[in-house]
Parts: sequence; C-alpha cells; structure tokens
Amino acid sequence: MKIISGGVCAAKGFRAAGLHCGIRRNKSKKDLALIVSDVPAQTAAVYTTNKVQGAPIAVTRRHLADGTARAVICNSGNANTCNADGEHVAAQMCQLTGNALGLKSGDIAVASTGVIGQPLDVTPIANALPDLVKTLSQQGGEDAAEAIMTTDTTRKEYALEFKLDGKICRMGAIAKGSGMVHPNMATMLIFITTDANIPSPLLQKALREDCEESFHMVSVDGDTSTNDMVLIMANAMAGNAPIAADSEDYRTFCAALRKLTVNLCREIARDGEGASRLLTCNVTGAASLSAARQAAKAVICSSLIKTAIFGADANWGRVLCALGYGLAELDPDRVDVSFSSAAGEIAVCKNGQGLAFSEERAKEILTQDEVTINAKIGGGTHCATAWGCDLSYEYVRINGDYRT
Amino acid sequence: MKIISGGVCAAKGFRAAGLHCGIRRNKSKKDLALIVSDVPAQTAAVYTTNKVQGAPIAVTRRHLADGTARAVICNSGNANTCNADGEHVAAQMCQLTGNALGLKSGDIAVASTGVIGQPLDVTPIANALPDLVKTLSQQGGEDAAEAIMTTDTTRKEYALEFKLDGKICRMGAIAKGSGMVHPNMATMLIFITTDANIPSPLLQKALREDCEESFHMVSVDGDTSTNDMVLIMANAMAGNAPIAADSEDYRTFCAALRKLTVNLCREIARDGEGASRLLTCNVTGAASLSAARQAAKAVICSSLIKTAIFGADANWGRVLCALGYGLAELDPDRVDVSFSSAAGEIAVCKNGQGLAFSEERAKEILTQDEVTINAKIGGGTHCATAWGCDLSYEYVRINGDYRT
Repeated sequence: MKIISGGVCAAKGFRAAGLHCGIRRNKSKKDLALIVSDVPAQTAAVYTTNKVQGAPIAVTRRHLADGTARAVICNSGNANTCNADGEHVAAQMCQLTGNALGLKSGDIAVASTGVIGQPLDVTPIANALPDLVKTLSQQGGEDAAEAIMTTDTTRKEYALEFKLDGKICRMGAIAKGSGMVHPNMATMLIFITTDANIPSPLLQKALREDCEESFHMVSVDGDTSTNDMVLIMANAMAGNAPIAADSEDYRTFCAALRKLTVNLCREIARDGEGASRLLTCNVTGAASLSAARQAAKAVICSSLIKTAIFGADANWGRVLCALGYGLAELDPDRVDVSFSSAAGEIAVCKNGQGLAFSEERAKEILTQDEVTINAKIGGGTHCATAWGCDLSYEYVRINGDYRT
Repeated sequence: MKIISGGVCAAKGFRAAGLHCGIRRNKSKKDLALIVSDVPAQTAAVYTTNKVQGAPIAVTRRHLADGTARAVICNSGNANTCNADGEHVAAQMCQLTGNALGLKSGDIAVASTGVIGQPLDVTPIANALPDLVKTLSQQGGEDAAEAIMTTDTTRKEYALEFKLDGKICRMGAIAKGSGMVHPNMATMLIFITTDANIPSPLLQKALREDCEESFHMVSVDGDTSTNDMVLIMANAMAGNAPIAADSEDYRTFCAALRKLTVNLCREIARDGEGASRLLTCNVTGAASLSAARQAAKAVICSSLIKTAIFGADANWGRVLCALGYGLAELDPDRVDVSFSSAAGEIAVCKNGQGLAFSEERAKEILTQDEVTINAKIGGGTHCATAWGCDLSYEYVRINGDYRT
C-alpha cells in the first residue's frame, strides 16, 4: 500500500473542479465543488445522526437508494438547513448539475456546509455550473478540496494505491471539518473515490464499520453537525474482479480505507477550530471495545483536558476525572496514565496515583505539535484510539461571531 | 418566604469560620472552612456520580450513615483525590476537627476541593484547627464562604426565612463552583443549614428530588468533578413539629429549598470560569420531563452556543443543532426559538425555520448580563430550565495552566 498524489482524482475515471460561484462574499474563497465519475459508481454513505438534518441529506438519501451515483455537487458558505424551501433547492442543485453533465438528477449526490437557517439562493450555483463542468479535470481535486472548506485552515486530501486481484487500485478523498465535529455520528464532509470494483452493499458495510473506528472517534467541540456525510464512490475502472464478502481482497480494501480515513481524522482534528496541537488518546486494558471507545472519547472531549493541553500542563488528574465520568464502570486503582510525543514519553500516574515526574520534561513533551495521552484502564484486552485537539483562545474568537 | 442575611449562619444554632491555614501559597486566600451546629443535626447529602471520587467523599458517606452530623470541615487548594493516603488524611481531618470541638470523628463531614492527585499534608490543618474553632461565630459565614472558593470570583451565600407549624424557620447556604461543573451528577460544593425540624430520610428525599431540578441542571464546562457534594444539616432548633411526608409543611420546606438552590445555581453559572454572562435555557412543549431536561442541558452545554452567546451572536441554527443531537426524538418543524433578556425578547425561529429579525435588536438583547434561550420543542406539556454561561477567552486562560 503506498501513498500517492491526486487526492479525490487519484482513482481512474474521476474528475473534479472547484470555483467561487458567489455564495460567499469573499471572492477569493471557492464555494462550489463537483466530483464526477466517468462511469456509474457503486456508492455508499453514512450520515449524521442529528435529528435536525440538512435538506441535502434528505435528497442524497433518495438519490443513493439504488446504490449508485455519478457525481457529487457540494457548496460551502450555507448549510441549506432549517429553510422552508431547502429540499427544493437541494433537488434543484442536483437537477441543474445533471443537466450540465447530461445525467439524470437521481445520479447526483448533494451536500452543503455553512451557516444554518439562511435561505440558499440557487442562482449563483445555476450560473456557475457551465464553468464548473467545463473545468472538470483530473487535476481538479485541489480546487474541489478548497471549495468545501469552511473554517478549515488547510486543504484536506489524501490518496493511496493498493493491489486487488493483481490489479492496481487507487483510493482518494477530500475532506472538510474543523468545528461542530463530534464522535458517534457520521462527522464532517468526506468524499472518497476509488476505482476498485466492489458492490454497493459490501461498500456500505465497509464504510459503516470503518466509521466506528475513524470518523466516529474524532471530536473538536462536542457539537454534532446537522450536515455531516461520508460518501464513497467505487467505479470499478481498476478492472479487478468484484470484491466478495469475507475475502482477502475485502480485507485489503478495508485496510486501505482505514489508512485513508485515519489520516483524514488526524488532519481534521489537527485543524480543529483554533487548535494549536493534535491530541490523540490511546486507551488500552478495557474490558470491552465499547468501554475503550467511550474512555478515549471522554478524554478527548473534556474541555478541561483540552485547555490543559493548550497550556502544556501535565494535569493528569483531569484525565482520571474524565475517565471517571465517561465510563459506567472504572476501578481508579488500576489506571495508568502517560503523556507522549515526538519528544518522548513520561509516566505521570500509576495505579490511580500520581508519580513523581519532572515538570520540565513534561513541558518538553507537551509542547510538541502532536501529543498523545495513553491510558491503561484495567486488565482487559480491548483498546481504542480517539483524536481531538486542544481548546484555545482562537476557538472562542472563531465561534464568537461566526455568522458575520 | 423572605430573603435574609447571614448565609450559612442564618439558621439558629449554626456557627462558622474560615481562615488561611497554608494549603494555598497565597496567604491572603482563606483555604479552610468549618461549619458547626450547636446540637446534632439531621443530615443528608448527594454526591458526584464520577467513578473516580475524592477520598473525603468516602469518609463523609461513612460518617453520615446514621443520618446525623454536627460539623463540616472543608479545605480548598487540594482535592485530596487519587492519593495513596487520601482516606487516611480525610479521616484525620475529621478526627482532628472532632478533637478540637469535643465531638466524635463520626459527627464530622469532610470535603476538599482543588487540584487532583497531589498529596494533602494534614499538618497545616492540624495547626490551624484551634484558631478555626476559636473564631467560630454567627458572623463567620462569609469567611467560610471565602475559604471554600477555588477559581470562583465571587463569594456565594444565600439565606431565607419561612414559616412551618407557626414557627419561623431559616435556611442558609454557602457554595463554591466555577469550573468542572456539569449536570446529572451532584455538582460543586454546597453546604446548606436549616433550623427546621425534619427527619433525615425525608431530608434526603427532599434534597435528592431538588437536585434533579437545580444542581443537576447547571453546566459550566461539561466536566463532572470528582469531589462534588451537596450537604444539608437540619438541627430542629426552630422548634417546629417534625415535618411529615406529603404534608403542607413538607411542600413549604421544599419550596424554600428550591428557592435557595436555584439562586445558588444561577450564582454558580454566572460565575462560571471566564463567564461574561449567565445563560439560561427554558424548554417548553416537551413530551416528557426527561426530554425537557435533556433539551435544556444540550443547549447550555454546547460549546458553539456558548461561544455565540459570548459574541452576542443570535446564531439560532446552533440551538436547533443542539436540540437535534441532544434529543432521541425531535420534530424540527415544531421548534420555536427566541432570545430574551432584561432588554426584551426577540423571536428568531418559528416551526423550525428562520424568522426575519433585526440583528441590531438581537445584539441589544444578547449583550445583557443575563440571557435566556427559550425553546418550544413541540406540543407537549413538560418544561425544564438549565443554567450555564458563555465560553470566553478567559476560560481558556484559567484552565490552560491551572496547577501552577
């Protein structure tokens, strides 16, 4: 398995484009993205579990009911959520995109991200679609990645190559996610493309299971978005035989998917609103998988831990505290905690009690760009990893006046 | 029912004191408090549900097993949690206090608040106890209130007077709580005294039920402390006949308790770490009481809503979003939202969709010291209130380096 360039266009038969159509006032910020497969693609998706859902989600659900799609249209700057005519606008976006591409409306998936509760005018999208289609290319992944960004400070894309059935396959993605990001629900916007040949029910299974250990384990701020969607299109152009359930090829495909999604999780957490460092929590010794996940998520979601990490303060008591309220059962006397980073590792708590440690050494470890909290929570065999970020002044600034 | 002065010493037969004993480095900050009843008091308590619990909680539980107590000793500056000798130290604090007062160790409740995981040296407490006992007085409530403060910026005390059985009764309290405050568990440290005559099982029932609608509905930062405790002592010195279950007197007692606890909830939320304004959420129209409470808590816990309130930004979409993930069931089309304060009220969302409103008028309403979010979430009859605060730069500063 090797990392390659090309992002969402790395896989055979995918083209993309992104431009500024006018939803955003800032003309230098692209706000409309399009990803197209040259041939029909088996398609799967996981959506937010928020009871308030953006109109695009309802439309995309309908259009993916047959397990196939040809394209994704996505705007930033407006979530098209809580609007009276939201579904009509989302359906129009698909209709217009279909017309411009010579495809049926039902072949198009649609997504929107941005402010909730402001009507989305379809006019700038309609006006821009001819140009957007004209600029579709295999080099368009970067533009598409830029166009779906909101408060993201970095473009997020990734791609890799692997072999199935003797054929070279590729998988690539673009992602956006910085605030309103929380585990246990499909999070953010993630569009994945692959030229592997995999039937949509199996693709759906692979994606759903992967999310449990990837996007559902990321939190920036504990708020679950109304518009989150992870979508994967597989167009079979690599020429491999269809992947069968429980096969070696299926395991290879899932491993590639996990490598890609974990990378995006880390990028999203690292770019969390206002974040100055990526925070990873590794939990081991749990009695069950769900306890391991709960524990890891409680740690990365704690505002007190997040601010301590911002201040590079080795306040391990807050880790014990978060484990204590995050878990239904915990024997504090069996908890060990250490902090680690590129600068090394320091043990701070053993069997629920503090160890003597050098504050200076701890500071050295905690001031790195990536910091990991390691918590052994008992004698069990289950483990889990969650990703988050520190909580900084900048998060408050960004969200204190988001709409203006 | 009328508000009176005197705080935790307003009720007959209670004295208090507070001083600096040396747990904290800052000599101007009191760090040891004592509250004493002249006669044995029926006593009830509600504790944190965190699985990691401070050593004082284990000791206090044992000492209150018989439903009575005479005194509470409490230090700030160190939580005495996750320490090898923690229970021994907490027991010693009771023993020393009992000795100084001429009481049994089992008559003393103990509480600690501050940093987790640093051994608590009992020496400064032992040295200070003679002075502490000597300064006990009916005027000592303020000193005690100061001595239990941590990051609190204001002393929190309250007292009121009411009639039971033709006799004047009084109830007073001191409280501390500013960070690591979250609902659904006993939160903060609250010591309540009353001279009403009420048997401890009924007192326990009244306190437990009250907490559901008071302290369990407050959140500053979503982190549940390891050391939270709400304790009430009733010494019967008002001379009323013992309150009976389901009586008019019981209802009067509960109403007084509610008035006192809600006041403290508001004070704690208003003084949340870094808070610039008190945030109240009133939910109506819920199908069940638990749904109403869940909804109100989801709103006040949302980092995105808290930062929007800090920025006085009428971003009601985030309210819909929080309701959507906070509730198991929600029909967004039946949700109405308004913001209100001393400056008036402004409706921003009707039937799940945005209303046209003046941003200027919204700003006027949202820049007040107290802001209320009103959410009608359906056609049900249940309602609930929760209290929180905005999320500011100051919260990050306070918690970025708490230990040093």
